[in-house]
Amino acid sequence: MAAWDKRLAGVRGVLLDISGVLYDGGEDGGAPIPGSVEAVARLKRSRLKVRFCTNESQKSRRELVGLLRRQGFDISEGEVTAPAPAASLILKERSLRPHLLVCDGVRSEFGQIDTTNPNCVVIADAGEDFSYQNMNKAFQVLMELEKPVLISLGKGRYYKETSGLMLDVGAYMKALEYACGIEAEVVGKPSPEYFQLALKEMGVEAHEAIMIGDDIVGDVGGAQRCGMRALQVRTGKFRPSDEQHPQVKADGYVDNLAEAVDLLLQHATK
Amino acid sequence: MAAWDKRLAGVRGVLLDISGVLYDGGEDGGAPIPGSVEAVARLKRSRLKVRFCTNESQKSRRELVGLLRRQGFDISEGEVTAPAPAASLILKERSLRPHLLVCDGVRSEFGQIDTTNPNCVVIADAGEDFSYQNMNKAFQVLMELEKPVLISLGKGRYYKETSGLMLDVGAYMKALEYACGIEAEVVGKPSPEYFQLALKEMGVEAHEAIMIGDDIVGDVGGAQRCGMRALQVRTGKFRPSDEQHPQVKADGYVDNLAEAVDLLLQHATK
Repeated sequence: MAAWDKRLAGVRGVLLDISGVLYDGGEDGGAPIPGSVEAVARLKRSRLKVRFCTNESQKSRRELVGLLRRQGFDISEGEVTAPAPAASLILKERSLRPHLLVCDGVRSEFGQIDTTNPNCVVIADAGEDFSYQNMNKAFQVLMELEKPVLISLGKGRYYKETSGLMLDVGAYMKALEYACGIEAEVVGKPSPEYFQLALKEMGVEAHEAIMIGDDIVGDVGGAQRCGMRALQVRTGKFRPSDEQHPQVKADGYVDNLAEAVDLLLQHATK
Repeated sequence: MAAWDKRLAGVRGVLLDISGVLYDGGEDGGAPIPGSVEAVARLKRSRLKVRFCTNESQKSRRELVGLLRRQGFDISEGEVTAPAPAASLILKERSLRPHLLVCDGVRSEFGQIDTTNPNCVVIADAGEDFSYQNMNKAFQVLMELEKPVLISLGKGRYYKETSGLMLDVGAYMKALEYACGIEAEVVGKPSPEYFQLALKEMGVEAHEAIMIGDDIVGDVGGAQRCGMRALQVRTGKFRPSDEQHPQVKADGYVDNLAEAVDLLLQHATK
């Protein structure tokens, strides 16, 4: 592999995944990944632009930022690209009235949206709310539509909490796709539109940006397909087999965000 | 289409799907489909062999047969091919110890199986037991296995109850397949091994047998791929678009089981 100097040349903006990079979630709010609080602070003191690009769809941005700030992170709502507000914009633009299969936490992001007489279904990482009854209701709404529209906030397979691996929204998206014979529209990583939204919000071109994430497909592969570079951290849901992934090769593998920031500060700003 | 005489020539055995053909399930036990009780009785008085071939995996055969007998059907446990007992045989043969994600109703079919220290996961139509917690547990068991084995009792997309369409086990199978990056083994229709088991139990060759079902893919397509003929009934989960299915064409479409039996008794036994 080329030297870091070459791999990180010209990077002006950094997109940071949150879960598995900044912290591991959990019932008690989870815990920061060692070194990440300081790494974010150092990055923000540098000349690099920073944006947080998450697929978190259980919590509103307000809740997520509050939780991270209590853990010591320097982060504000305006710095976060999250799928629920992005979906909310799409719903407005297309005059879609969603049946929402989402946690109560994230429902406030759809506060301005008409949900009467639904003509589409939006699913998020609903956690315990993915009951049979709720899934069946979403299924029935879709089956009654002439042209069923299913919008999924991300399509992650699973994520890691302090208690272990947890099924993510992608699994439930696949269940509804199969049952209804349809294909969902994904709002969130690895959708190109979503990465482009984050780049636009950061004000950096794809070739000047690098994504740092723990998901070899959703973060690394998705960002690379948009013309960005991407590093995978060996934290969160990282598994050793990711480094031999048959389709996706990161521009670098690092132990954690702290190491990524060390490398960026050393090589990217030259 | 050829005349019925030709289409039904040489039929000696009839495989009947249960849900959507004999009765529509429901919380109160459901209700027989008009004419089906008499149709089964007439078929059993004829020279044709009859076997019931179901993907029912919420109830044990004992429960299912009890429910059908109370609705007036002439049916006994020994005449029913069901996925749970078929899976139980496979588990024994391969020394597999399952983690069971199944309803309590069907658990008795696995009474002789060692379930300690599981080395595979078996999922059935678990209905309300498809909670996030139960799905996540099955996911975690699979992710901890070096070679994850997932056995699914059928792969139906949905079925019809008196209250409406209901998500079937196939949707949840897809969710686990996607989350774990694996492919499930299906025990039940449309698996060829399963149809062959039913034919063997009936003592009839594939070319002498006809399947009658409400599922264009699982019943009709599956049976045809095994060299059998198949009729689709316009009851249960039948939808008018099934008659223009892009991949599967039934050997005939009939309004209900009563019409199918009329035709069989008129043409098949000649």
